[in-house]
Amino acid sequence: MTASPYHPINPSLGTVAILGLGLMGGSLGLALRARGAAREVVGWARRQATLDAALACGAIDRAFADLHEAVAEADVVVLAVTVAAILPLLEQIAPACKPDAAITDVGSAKARIVREAEEIAGGRFVGGHPMAGSEQAGIAAASADLYQNAAWVLTPTPQTDLNALERIEQMARSVGAVPRRCNPTKHDQLVASLSHLPHLLAYGLAQTAGFHVEDEWVDLAAGSFRDGTRVSKSDPVLWTEILLDNRAAVLQSLDDFDGWLARARAALLEGDAAALAELLSAAHGARKRFPK
Amino acid sequence: MTASPYHPINPSLGTVAILGLGLMGGSLGLALRARGAAREVVGWARRQATLDAALACGAIDRAFADLHEAVAEADVVVLAVTVAAILPLLEQIAPACKPDAAITDVGSAKARIVREAEEIAGGRFVGGHPMAGSEQAGIAAASADLYQNAAWVLTPTPQTDLNALERIEQMARSVGAVPRRCNPTKHDQLVASLSHLPHLLAYGLAQTAGFHVEDEWVDLAAGSFRDGTRVSKSDPVLWTEILLDNRAAVLQSLDDFDGWLARARAALLEGDAAALAELLSAAHGARKRFPK
Repeated sequence: MTASPYHPINPSLGTVAILGLGLMGGSLGLALRARGAAREVVGWARRQATLDAALACGAIDRAFADLHEAVAEADVVVLAVTVAAILPLLEQIAPACKPDAAITDVGSAKARIVREAEEIAGGRFVGGHPMAGSEQAGIAAASADLYQNAAWVLTPTPQTDLNALERIEQMARSVGAVPRRCNPTKHDQLVASLSHLPHLLAYGLAQTAGFHVEDEWVDLAAGSFRDGTRVSKSDPVLWTEILLDNRAAVLQSLDDFDGWLARARAALLEGDAAALAELLSAAHGARKRFPK
Repeated sequence: MTASPYHPINPSLGTVAILGLGLMGGSLGLALRARGAAREVVGWARRQATLDAALACGAIDRAFADLHEAVAEADVVVLAVTVAAILPLLEQIAPACKPDAAITDVGSAKARIVREAEEIAGGRFVGGHPMAGSEQAGIAAASADLYQNAAWVLTPTPQTDLNALERIEQMARSVGAVPRRCNPTKHDQLVASLSHLPHLLAYGLAQTAGFHVEDEWVDLAAGSFRDGTRVSKSDPVLWTEILLDNRAAVLQSLDDFDGWLARARAALLEGDAAALAELLSAAHGARKRFPK
């Protein structure tokens, strides 16, 4: 069997441009390069120090300080910036991208971004949200294994270019993730419960303990507090953007949570062991449906 | 230097009787025996299968099916049973204990238990709560390292026998824990925020996701959901007992949490980024005070 230069046996993603080289973008670069999945990984970041760090740790092959140069030859463009920065960045780069380039993002909310991104870039924009991350941020926390076994949600619409979608799915698989297709609104409803509400509660729990626990007692915090508040170590400005971007779905999820909590509170107030046990047992059962 | 038989260089705890051989009791036995901290570790459990398992894994030296025999020669007695079972068990064993035995428990709430335990057993009862655990239960999950570096809260009162207190502190140190003295009511207020509220919220979060997420999407659950709901895998009956036993402090902590959440909800509803960022930033700062 002869490898044809036109139909390589292992089709490469071509040139991948990663715009934004924090935890998500840096990890993507590391993963693509570790697996030889792209012909070249090029990167852009606002700060020169970030570009230098990304080159030094091997997250990118080439660094660009100029946005238009970064995307000019790219077959795949990944907007790995914060939720509020995605659309302004897309407006800047869309005219400079190759017409058949696939463009995606890694933002945590999708409906608004996808709607507006399609107005800017058309069907070659494919909304994306890898379900991986960390309370840490920045290129220093990047890891080639971040996406391993993670679900990577893509949110195509009737407008989406199928070639672009498949190229992004190929990229997700190439870094060990499992691509999933989901419509943008459904995605936002799912992550409201599976990621956004957990973050909001973690911040609230950290603040409540902050009210109640003096410095001399902070060492009493055990595993349930540590894990329940871990993501309150995440950047609060980033999470303000995400929660607001998805506020309709977050409020819906919060309503249901509040309803549950009100019933638990009533059971506590009344000392109703049977009612409280029923609530906790049902929740315990609900948890078993989730794989992790 | 000659070791005197009357003042051994490494004072032993003597005979330790562990009543209840689940995660907490089993781990204590393993830890004491691994470190040679006691002359003998004897154990009692309701079920013969648990006693057999505890002997087989090395958590105890000798097993007793009879409660009175289990405590007859003990210098330290540890009630390692669930919150609701502690006082009934203490009533059964108090008459059979040596007069100078130190008796402690590992219950997650303290004020009521200590008050009533002192009526039963006097100052030789020392309330205890090691800040260690797991969502897992039973002797099969026991580990000699469970208490390593954990705070082990002891809740003496003016009635507490100082010798008994110091013997329990010695036991805590001997398994790698850090003993802390705290009055029972203060303890209950602290753990309401640091353990009980985190458990309640974990159950509520699991149930909310249960409402919203169909089976085909459960793999989208990422780290924040996994960690935020981990302890909802804990036994719901056990946690019903604990939350009800400490309900006054839990309700107080829940009030403060609810107040915070109401403000976050208002900021979301109004799309008020500055207000939401301020709430999250303050919580983010509060979290930094905690060591883990």
